[in-house]
Amino acid sequence: MAKLYVVGIGPGDPNQMTGEALAALDEADVFCGYSTYLDLVRDLFPGKATYETPMRGEAGRCQWALDAAIAGRTVALLSSGDAGVYGMASLVLELAGESIEPEIEIVPGVTAALSGAAVLGAPLGHDFCCISLSDLLTPWETIERRLTAAAQGDFVTVLYNPASRTRTDHLSRACDVLLQYQEPDVVCGWVRNIGRPHQDSRILTLIELRDEELDMLCTVFVGSSETQLIAERMVTPRGYEQRS
Amino acid sequence: MAKLYVVGIGPGDPNQMTGEALAALDEADVFCGYSTYLDLVRDLFPGKATYETPMRGEAGRCQWALDAAIAGRTVALLSSGDAGVYGMASLVLELAGESIEPEIEIVPGVTAALSGAAVLGAPLGHDFCCISLSDLLTPWETIERRLTAAAQGDFVTVLYNPASRTRTDHLSRACDVLLQYQEPDVVCGWVRNIGRPHQDSRILTLIELRDEELDMLCTVFVGSSETQLIAERMVTPRGYEQRS
Repeated sequence: MAKLYVVGIGPGDPNQMTGEALAALDEADVFCGYSTYLDLVRDLFPGKATYETPMRGEAGRCQWALDAAIAGRTVALLSSGDAGVYGMASLVLELAGESIEPEIEIVPGVTAALSGAAVLGAPLGHDFCCISLSDLLTPWETIERRLTAAAQGDFVTVLYNPASRTRTDHLSRACDVLLQYQEPDVVCGWVRNIGRPHQDSRILTLIELRDEELDMLCTVFVGSSETQLIAERMVTPRGYEQRS
Repeated sequence: MAKLYVVGIGPGDPNQMTGEALAALDEADVFCGYSTYLDLVRDLFPGKATYETPMRGEAGRCQWALDAAIAGRTVALLSSGDAGVYGMASLVLELAGESIEPEIEIVPGVTAALSGAAVLGAPLGHDFCCISLSDLLTPWETIERRLTAAAQGDFVTVLYNPASRTRTDHLSRACDVLLQYQEPDVVCGWVRNIGRPHQDSRILTLIELRDEELDMLCTVFVGSSETQLIAERMVTPRGYEQRS
Protein backbone atom coordinates (compact mmCIF):
# COMPACT_ATOMS: atom_id res chain seq x y z
CA MET A 1 0.00 0.00 0.00
CA ALA A 2 1.31 3.42 -0.96
CA LYS A 3 2.22 5.33 2.18
CA LEU A 4 3.23 8.87 3.04
CA TYR A 5 4.53 9.72 6.50
CA VAL A 6 4.50 13.39 7.45
CA VAL A 7 7.14 13.39 10.16
CA GLY A 8 7.90 15.97 12.83
CA ILE A 9 11.61 15.61 13.51
CA GLY A 10 11.71 17.87 16.58
CA PRO A 11 13.90 20.92 17.06
CA GLY A 12 17.06 19.54 15.51
CA ASP A 13 18.89 17.28 17.92
CA PRO A 14 18.16 13.69 16.74
CA ASN A 15 17.93 12.83 20.45
CA GLN A 16 14.74 14.93 20.60
CA MET A 17 12.97 12.83 17.97
CA THR A 18 10.43 10.22 19.02
CA GLY A 19 10.88 6.52 18.42
CA GLU A 20 7.86 6.65 16.12
CA ALA A 21 9.52 9.33 13.96
CA LEU A 22 12.76 7.36 13.76
CA ALA A 23 10.81 4.24 12.76
CA ALA A 24 9.00 6.13 9.99
CA LEU A 25 12.28 7.47 8.62
CA ASP A 26 13.79 4.01 8.78
CA GLU A 27 10.86 2.50 6.87
CA ALA A 28 10.79 5.18 4.17
CA ASP A 29 12.34 4.65 0.74
CA VAL A 30 12.87 8.36 0.24
CA PHE A 31 13.02 11.51 2.36
CA CYS A 32 11.48 14.71 1.07
CA GLY A 33 12.05 18.10 2.64
CA TYR A 34 13.71 21.45 2.94
CA SER A 35 17.49 20.94 2.73
CA THR A 36 18.20 22.23 6.24
CA TYR A 37 15.88 19.64 7.78
CA LEU A 38 17.30 16.84 5.66
CA ASP A 39 20.77 17.77 6.91
CA LEU A 40 19.59 17.20 10.48
CA VAL A 41 18.79 13.52 9.88
CA ARG A 42 21.17 12.64 7.03
CA ASP A 43 23.87 11.22 9.31
CA LEU A 44 21.38 8.88 10.97
CA PHE A 45 20.31 7.34 7.69
CA PRO A 46 23.25 7.47 5.29
CA GLY A 47 22.48 6.40 1.76
CA LYS A 48 18.75 7.15 1.95
CA ALA A 49 17.38 8.71 -1.22
CA THR A 50 16.37 12.34 -0.78
CA TYR A 51 14.30 14.85 -2.69
CA GLU A 52 15.35 18.33 -1.60
CA THR A 53 13.72 21.64 -2.21
CA PRO A 54 14.63 25.14 -1.01
CA MET A 55 12.68 27.01 1.67
CA ARG A 56 9.75 28.11 -0.45
CA GLY A 57 7.97 25.76 -2.78
CA GLU A 58 6.11 23.94 -0.02
CA ALA A 59 3.16 23.04 -2.24
CA GLY A 60 5.42 21.58 -4.91
CA ARG A 61 7.29 19.57 -2.32
CA CYS A 62 4.08 18.18 -0.81
CA GLN A 63 2.70 17.29 -4.25
CA TRP A 64 5.94 15.50 -5.12
CA ALA A 65 5.64 13.49 -1.91
CA LEU A 66 2.02 12.57 -2.66
CA ASP A 67 2.83 11.58 -6.23
CA ALA A 68 5.83 9.48 -5.18
CA ALA A 69 3.73 7.65 -2.58
CA ILE A 70 0.93 7.03 -5.10
CA ALA A 71 3.58 5.63 -7.45
CA GLY A 72 4.37 3.04 -4.76
CA ARG A 73 7.24 4.48 -2.80
CA THR A 74 7.16 4.84 1.00
CA VAL A 75 7.82 8.51 1.50
CA ALA A 76 8.79 10.50 4.60
CA LEU A 77 8.02 14.20 4.27
CA LEU A 78 9.99 16.04 6.95
CA SER A 79 8.88 19.00 9.04
CA SER A 80 11.00 20.53 11.76
CA GLY A 81 9.36 20.51 15.19
CA ASP A 82 5.88 19.04 14.93
CA ALA A 83 4.47 17.99 11.55
CA GLY A 84 1.17 19.74 12.22
CA VAL A 85 2.16 23.05 13.86
CA TYR A 86 2.90 25.45 10.99
CA GLY A 87 4.17 22.26 9.31
CA MET A 88 3.47 20.30 6.17
CA ALA A 89 0.63 18.13 7.50
CA SER A 90 -2.26 20.48 6.70
CA LEU A 91 -0.94 21.29 3.24
CA VAL A 92 -0.54 17.59 2.40
CA LEU A 93 -4.07 16.81 3.55
CA GLU A 94 -5.45 19.75 1.56
CA LEU A 95 -3.65 18.65 -1.60
CA ALA A 96 -4.69 15.02 -1.15
CA GLY A 97 -8.30 16.13 -0.83
CA GLU A 98 -10.79 13.29 -0.87
CA SER A 99 -8.56 10.78 -2.65
CA ILE A 100 -8.07 7.53 -0.78
CA GLU A 101 -4.50 7.04 -1.96
CA PRO A 102 -1.90 7.26 -0.58
CA GLU A 103 -2.39 6.36 3.05
CA ILE A 104 -1.21 9.41 5.01
CA GLU A 105 0.10 9.14 8.56
CA ILE A 106 0.98 12.22 10.62
CA VAL A 107 3.83 11.58 13.07
CA PRO A 108 3.91 14.27 15.77
CA GLY A 109 7.08 15.77 17.22
CA VAL A 110 8.33 18.26 19.78
CA THR A 111 7.47 21.71 18.44
CA ALA A 112 9.59 24.78 19.23
CA ALA A 113 7.08 26.03 21.82
CA LEU A 114 7.83 22.95 23.93
CA SER A 115 11.57 22.58 23.30
CA GLY A 116 12.15 26.31 23.70
CA ALA A 117 10.09 26.43 26.88
CA ALA A 118 12.26 23.69 28.42
CA VAL A 119 15.36 25.80 27.75
CA LEU A 120 13.86 28.87 29.43
CA GLY A 121 12.27 27.06 32.39
CA ALA A 122 8.53 26.43 32.46
CA PRO A 123 6.78 29.36 30.75
CA LEU A 124 3.92 27.13 29.52
CA GLY A 125 2.74 25.97 32.93
CA HIS A 126 -0.67 27.47 32.26
CA ASP A 127 -2.84 28.42 29.25
CA PHE A 128 -0.88 29.63 26.23
CA CYS A 129 -1.22 30.36 22.55
CA CYS A 130 1.03 30.16 19.51
CA ILE A 131 1.02 32.90 16.88
CA SER A 132 3.17 33.10 13.75
CA LEU A 133 4.38 36.59 12.89
CA SER A 134 4.91 35.65 9.25
CA ASP A 135 2.57 37.59 6.98
CA LEU A 136 3.51 35.55 3.92
CA LEU A 137 0.25 33.60 4.13
CA THR A 138 -1.74 35.65 6.64
CA PRO A 139 -2.75 39.31 6.52
CA TRP A 140 -1.02 41.42 9.20
CA GLU A 141 -4.45 42.57 10.42
CA THR A 142 -5.27 38.97 11.35
CA ILE A 143 -1.98 38.65 13.20
CA GLU A 144 -2.70 41.88 15.12
CA ARG A 145 -6.18 40.67 15.96
CA ARG A 146 -4.75 37.48 17.43
CA LEU A 147 -2.05 39.32 19.39
CA THR A 148 -4.75 41.55 20.85
CA ALA A 149 -6.87 38.57 21.82
CA ALA A 150 -3.88 36.79 23.36
CA ALA A 151 -3.04 39.82 25.51
CA GLN A 152 -6.66 40.44 26.49
CA GLY A 153 -7.00 36.79 27.51
CA ASP A 154 -3.79 37.04 29.60
CA PHE A 155 -2.32 34.03 27.81
CA VAL A 156 1.35 33.20 27.67
CA THR A 157 2.10 33.83 24.00
CA VAL A 158 4.64 31.96 21.89
CA LEU A 159 5.71 33.80 18.74
CA TYR A 160 6.92 31.71 15.80
CA ASN A 161 8.75 33.36 12.86
CA PRO A 162 9.48 36.60 14.74
CA ALA A 163 11.47 38.00 11.82
CA SER A 164 12.60 37.23 8.31
CA ARG A 165 15.28 38.64 6.05
CA THR A 166 12.87 41.07 4.41
CA ARG A 167 10.65 41.91 7.38
CA THR A 168 12.69 42.92 10.40
CA ASP A 169 10.09 45.01 12.25
CA HIS A 170 7.43 42.35 12.91
CA LEU A 171 8.58 41.67 16.45
CA SER A 172 8.61 45.32 17.50
CA ARG A 173 5.20 45.87 15.92
CA ALA A 174 3.87 42.78 17.73
CA CYS A 175 5.28 44.03 21.03
CA ASP A 176 3.60 47.39 20.47
CA VAL A 177 0.25 45.61 20.18
CA LEU A 178 0.89 43.55 23.33
CA LEU A 179 2.10 46.62 25.25
CA GLN A 180 -1.35 48.16 24.89
CA TYR A 181 -2.65 45.50 27.28
CA GLN A 182 0.38 44.04 29.09
CA GLU A 183 2.85 45.60 31.52
CA PRO A 184 6.25 46.57 30.07
CA ASP A 185 8.04 44.45 32.67
CA VAL A 186 6.24 41.20 31.85
CA VAL A 187 8.77 38.34 31.86
CA CYS A 188 9.69 37.29 28.29
CA GLY A 189 12.33 35.10 26.70
CA TRP A 190 13.67 33.88 23.40
CA VAL A 191 15.62 30.84 22.25
CA ARG A 192 17.68 30.57 19.06
CA ASN A 193 18.78 27.31 17.38
CA ILE A 194 16.96 25.09 19.86
CA GLY A 195 18.71 21.73 20.17
CA ARG A 196 21.23 22.70 17.49
CA PRO A 197 24.80 24.01 17.56
CA HIS A 198 25.05 27.61 18.81
CA GLN A 199 21.86 27.36 20.86
CA ASP A 200 21.36 30.68 22.61
CA SER A 201 18.66 32.19 24.80
CA ARG A 202 17.86 35.24 26.87
CA ILE A 203 15.25 36.23 29.43
CA LEU A 204 14.16 39.86 29.33
CA THR A 205 11.18 42.17 29.76
CA LEU A 206 8.53 42.93 27.16
CA ILE A 207 9.84 46.46 26.65
CA GLU A 208 13.35 45.09 26.14
CA LEU A 209 12.01 42.46 23.75
CA ARG A 210 10.54 45.23 21.63
CA ASP A 211 14.02 46.35 20.58
CA GLU A 212 15.68 42.93 20.44
CA GLU A 213 17.12 41.99 17.05
CA LEU A 214 16.06 38.43 16.38
CA ASP A 215 15.93 36.24 13.30
CA MET A 216 13.87 33.40 11.87
CA LEU A 217 15.81 30.85 13.90
CA CYS A 218 14.33 32.24 17.11
CA THR A 219 11.20 31.37 19.07
CA VAL A 220 9.85 34.03 21.43
CA PHE A 221 7.91 33.66 24.68
CA VAL A 222 5.84 36.48 26.19
CA GLY A 223 4.65 35.80 29.72
CA SER A 224 1.21 36.31 31.21
CA SER A 225 0.60 38.53 34.23
CA GLU A 226 1.36 35.46 36.38
CA THR A 227 4.72 34.59 34.82
CA GLN A 228 7.67 34.96 37.20
CA LEU A 229 11.43 35.06 37.08
CA ILE A 230 12.74 32.37 39.44
CA ALA A 231 16.47 31.59 39.62
CA GLU A 232 16.90 33.17 36.18
CA ARG A 233 14.22 30.97 34.68
CA MET A 234 10.84 31.92 33.20
CA VAL A 235 8.08 30.19 35.17
CA THR A 236 4.30 30.37 34.81
CA PRO A 237 2.58 28.73 37.79
CA ARG A 238 0.03 26.00 37.08
CA GLY A 239 -2.71 27.89 38.83
CA TYR A 240 -3.55 30.93 40.85
CA GLU A 241 -3.68 29.07 44.11
CA GLN A 242 -1.26 26.24 44.70
CA ARG A 243 -2.91 23.42 46.59
CA SER A 244 -0.99 20.43 47.83
CA MET B 1 26.11 16.56 41.39
CA ALA B 2 22.54 16.12 42.57
CA LYS B 3 20.23 16.07 39.56
CA LEU B 4 16.50 16.16 38.95
CA TYR B 5 15.07 15.46 35.52
CA VAL B 6 11.48 16.59 34.93
CA VAL B 7 10.56 14.31 32.04
CA GLY B 8 7.69 14.56 29.57
CA ILE B 9 6.94 10.97 28.59
CA GLY B 10 4.54 11.78 25.76
CA PRO B 11 0.96 10.58 25.43
CA GLY B 12 1.50 7.01 26.61
CA ASP B 13 2.99 4.88 23.86
CA PRO B 14 6.70 4.51 24.75
CA ASN B 15 7.33 4.83 21.01
CA GLN B 16 6.20 8.46 21.29
CA MET B 17 8.90 9.33 23.83
CA THR B 18 12.04 11.15 22.71
CA GLY B 19 15.51 9.65 22.93
CA GLU B 20 16.39 12.35 25.44
CA ALA B 21 13.52 11.31 27.71
CA LEU B 22 14.51 7.64 27.50
CA ALA B 23 18.12 8.55 28.35
CA ALA B 24 17.01 10.55 31.39
CA LEU B 25 14.90 7.64 32.64
CA ASP B 26 17.78 5.26 32.05
CA GLU B 27 20.18 7.47 34.01
CA ALA B 28 17.82 8.02 36.95
CA ASP B 29 18.14 6.06 40.19
CA VAL B 30 14.49 6.53 41.01
CA PHE B 31 11.28 7.44 39.19
CA CYS B 32 8.73 9.65 40.88
CA GLY B 33 5.21 10.18 39.59
CA TYR B 34 1.52 9.54 39.49
CA SER B 35 0.97 5.78 39.40
CA THR B 36 -0.71 5.78 35.98
CA TYR B 37 2.31 7.44 34.37
CA LEU B 38 4.74 5.11 36.11
CA ASP B 39 2.79 2.18 34.72
CA LEU B 40 3.41 3.47 31.19
CA VAL B 41 7.19 3.18 31.50
CA ARG B 42 7.58 0.40 34.08
CA ASP B 43 8.01 -2.34 31.50
CA LEU B 44 10.83 -0.45 29.79
CA PHE B 45 12.84 -0.15 32.99
CA PRO B 46 12.06 -3.18 35.17
CA GLY B 47 13.57 -3.06 38.64
CA LYS B 48 13.88 0.72 38.77
CA ALA B 49 13.00 2.18 42.16
CA THR B 50 9.77 4.18 42.13
CA TYR B 51 8.08 6.65 44.42
CA GLU B 52 4.39 6.69 43.59
CA THR B 53 1.70 9.10 44.64
CA PRO B 54 -1.96 9.31 43.72
CA MET B 55 -3.39 11.93 41.36
CA ARG B 56 -3.50 14.84 43.78
CA GLY B 57 -0.61 15.68 46.04
CA GLU B 58 1.49 17.20 43.25
CA ALA B 59 3.33 19.59 45.57
CA GLY B 60 4.30 16.78 47.93
CA ARG B 61 5.51 14.68 45.00
CA CYS B 62 7.63 17.51 43.62
CA GLN B 63 9.10 18.27 47.05
CA TRP B 64 9.97 14.59 47.49
CA ALA B 65 11.75 14.63 44.13
CA LEU B 66 13.70 17.78 45.05
CA ASP B 67 14.68 16.39 48.45
CA ALA B 68 15.76 13.05 46.98
CA ALA B 69 17.93 14.81 44.40
CA ILE B 70 19.48 17.08 47.04
CA ALA B 71 20.25 13.94 49.05
CA GLY B 72 22.31 12.74 46.09
CA ARG B 73 19.99 10.56 44.04
CA THR B 74 19.41 11.10 40.34
CA VAL B 75 15.65 11.52 40.13
CA ALA B 76 13.27 11.42 37.15
CA LEU B 77 9.96 13.14 37.90
CA LEU B 78 7.45 12.00 35.28
CA SER B 79 4.79 14.08 33.55
CA SER B 80 2.54 12.73 30.84
CA GLY B 81 2.77 14.62 27.56
CA ASP B 82 5.17 17.52 27.92
CA ALA B 83 6.81 18.26 31.29
CA GLY B 84 6.01 21.97 31.02
CA VAL B 85 2.44 22.07 29.64
CA TYR B 86 0.16 21.76 32.67
CA GLY B 87 2.96 19.51 33.94
CA MET B 88 5.25 19.34 36.93
CA ALA B 89 8.04 21.60 35.61
CA SER B 90 6.66 24.92 36.81
CA LEU B 91 5.75 23.55 40.25
CA VAL B 92 9.24 22.08 40.70
CA LEU B 93 10.90 25.36 39.74
CA GLU B 94 8.62 27.29 42.08
CA LEU B 95 9.40 24.95 44.99
CA ALA B 96 13.13 25.00 44.26
CA GLY B 97 13.07 28.79 44.32
CA GLU B 98 16.48 30.41 44.26
CA SER B 99 18.38 27.41 45.65
CA ILE B 100 21.25 26.23 43.46
CA GLU B 101 20.77 22.56 44.32
CA PRO B 102 19.72 20.26 42.79
CA GLU B 103 20.47 20.84 39.12
CA ILE B 104 17.08 20.72 37.39
CA GLU B 105 16.72 19.74 33.73
CA ILE B 106 13.38 19.95 31.92
CA VAL B 107 13.01 17.27 29.22
CA PRO B 108 10.22 18.19 26.79
CA GLY B 109 7.78 15.70 25.27
CA VAL B 110 4.87 15.43 22.87
CA THR B 111 1.91 17.08 24.59
CA ALA B 112 -1.68 15.96 23.95
CA ALA B 113 -2.35 18.95 21.67
CA LEU B 114 0.22 17.58 19.22
CA SER B 115 -0.42 13.86 19.55
CA GLY B 116 -4.19 14.35 19.47
CA ALA B 117 -3.95 16.65 16.47
CA ALA B 118 -2.06 13.98 14.52
CA VAL B 119 -4.88 11.52 15.17
CA LEU B 120 -7.53 13.96 13.91
CA GLY B 121 -5.57 15.26 10.91
CA ALA B 122 -3.90 18.67 11.05
CA PRO B 123 -6.09 20.99 13.14
CA LEU B 124 -3.07 23.01 14.37
CA GLY B 125 -1.87 24.15 10.95
CA HIS B 126 -2.31 27.76 12.00
CA ASP B 127 -2.38 29.81 15.23
CA PHE B 128 -3.86 27.99 18.20
CA CYS B 129 -4.22 28.16 21.96
CA CYS B 130 -4.44 25.66 24.78
CA ILE B 131 -6.88 26.16 27.67
CA SER B 132 -7.43 23.87 30.63
CA LEU B 133 -11.06 23.59 31.75
CA SER B 134 -10.06 22.47 35.23
CA ASP B 135 -11.09 25.04 37.84
CA LEU B 136 -9.18 23.28 40.62
CA LEU B 137 -6.41 25.89 40.46
CA THR B 138 -8.00 28.58 38.29
CA PRO B 139 -11.22 30.55 38.84
CA TRP B 140 -13.90 29.72 36.26
CA GLU B 141 -14.13 33.44 35.39
CA THR B 142 -10.52 33.34 34.19
CA ILE B 143 -11.28 30.27 32.09
CA GLU B 144 -14.30 32.02 30.54
CA ARG B 145 -12.22 35.12 29.84
CA ARG B 146 -9.67 32.99 27.96
CA LEU B 147 -12.34 31.11 26.00
CA THR B 148 -13.82 34.45 24.96
CA ALA B 149 -10.43 35.75 23.86
CA ALA B 150 -9.69 32.54 21.94
CA ALA B 151 -12.98 32.77 20.05
CA GLN B 152 -12.61 36.50 19.39
CA GLY B 153 -9.11 35.93 18.05
CA ASP B 154 -10.39 33.12 15.79
CA PHE B 155 -7.79 30.71 17.16
CA VAL B 156 -8.01 26.96 16.96
CA THR B 157 -8.58 26.05 20.61
CA VAL B 158 -7.34 22.92 22.35
CA LEU B 159 -9.19 22.10 25.57
CA TYR B 160 -7.33 20.09 28.20
CA ASN B 161 -9.20 18.51 31.15
CA PRO B 162 -12.64 18.88 29.54
CA ALA B 163 -14.34 17.09 32.43
CA SER B 164 -13.68 15.46 35.75
CA ARG B 165 -15.62 13.07 37.94
CA THR B 166 -17.13 15.87 39.98
CA ARG B 167 -17.53 18.51 37.27
CA THR B 168 -19.28 17.14 34.22
CA ASP B 169 -20.68 20.38 32.79
CA HIS B 170 -17.44 22.25 32.05
CA LEU B 171 -17.37 21.31 28.39
CA SER B 172 -20.94 22.38 27.69
CA ARG B 173 -20.38 25.65 29.55
CA ALA B 174 -17.19 26.24 27.56
CA CYS B 175 -19.02 25.54 24.29
CA ASP B 176 -21.73 28.03 25.29
CA VAL B 177 -19.06 30.72 25.65
CA LEU B 178 -17.49 29.84 22.29
CA LEU B 179 -20.90 29.71 20.58
CA GLN B 180 -21.38 33.41 21.34
CA TYR B 181 -18.63 34.13 18.77
CA GLN B 182 -18.22 31.00 16.64
CA GLU B 183 -20.58 29.29 14.21
CA PRO B 184 -22.38 26.17 15.49
CA ASP B 185 -21.03 24.13 12.58
CA VAL B 186 -17.34 24.87 13.23
CA VAL B 187 -15.33 21.67 12.77
CA CYS B 188 -14.34 20.16 16.13
CA GLY B 189 -12.86 16.88 17.31
CA TRP B 190 -11.83 14.95 20.37
CA VAL B 191 -9.40 12.14 21.10
CA ARG B 192 -9.49 9.78 24.08
CA ASN B 193 -6.55 7.69 25.37
CA ILE B 194 -4.09 9.05 22.82
CA GLY B 195 -1.40 6.48 22.08
CA ARG B 196 -2.84 4.08 24.65
CA PRO B 197 -5.10 1.03 24.44
CA HIS B 198 -8.71 1.90 23.55
CA GLN B 199 -7.72 5.08 21.68
CA ASP B 200 -10.88 6.65 20.30
CA SER B 201 -11.73 9.83 18.46
CA ARG B 202 -14.57 11.66 16.76
CA ILE B 203 -14.96 14.65 14.50
CA LEU B 204 -18.11 16.69 15.04
CA THR B 205 -19.50 20.22 15.04
CA LEU B 206 -19.31 22.71 17.88
CA ILE B 207 -23.02 22.39 18.62
CA GLU B 208 -22.67 18.60 18.74
CA LEU B 209 -19.60 18.92 20.97
CA ARG B 210 -21.69 20.90 23.45
CA ASP B 211 -23.67 17.78 24.36
CA GLU B 212 -20.85 15.23 24.07
CA GLU B 213 -20.12 13.27 27.22
CA LEU B 214 -16.37 13.24 27.62
CA ASP B 215 -14.03 12.48 30.50
CA MET B 216 -10.63 13.54 31.78
CA LEU B 217 -8.85 11.16 29.38
CA CYS B 218 -10.01 13.28 26.42
CA THR B 219 -8.43 16.22 24.63
CA VAL B 220 -10.77 18.46 22.63
CA PHE B 221 -10.09 20.52 19.50
CA VAL B 222 -12.32 23.42 18.42
CA GLY B 223 -11.57 24.71 14.94
CA SER B 224 -11.19 28.29 13.74
CA SER B 225 -13.37 29.76 11.00
CA GLU B 226 -10.81 28.39 8.51
CA THR B 227 -10.81 24.78 9.75
CA GLN B 228 -12.17 22.30 7.21
CA LEU B 229 -13.32 18.72 7.07
CA ILE B 230 -11.28 16.96 4.37
CA ALA B 231 -11.58 13.20 3.86
CA GLU B 232 -12.99 12.89 7.39
CA ARG B 233 -10.02 14.70 8.85
CA MET B 234 -9.87 18.04 10.69
CA VAL B 235 -7.58 20.39 8.74
CA THR B 236 -6.66 24.03 9.39
CA PRO B 237 -4.81 25.51 6.40
CA ARG B 238 -1.42 27.13 7.02
CA GLY B 239 -2.61 30.44 5.67
CA TYR B 240 -5.43 32.27 4.01
CA GLU B 241 -3.85 32.20 0.59
CA GLN B 242 -1.89 29.14 -0.48
CA ARG B 243 1.16 30.11 -2.48
CA SER B 244 3.34 27.55 -4.15
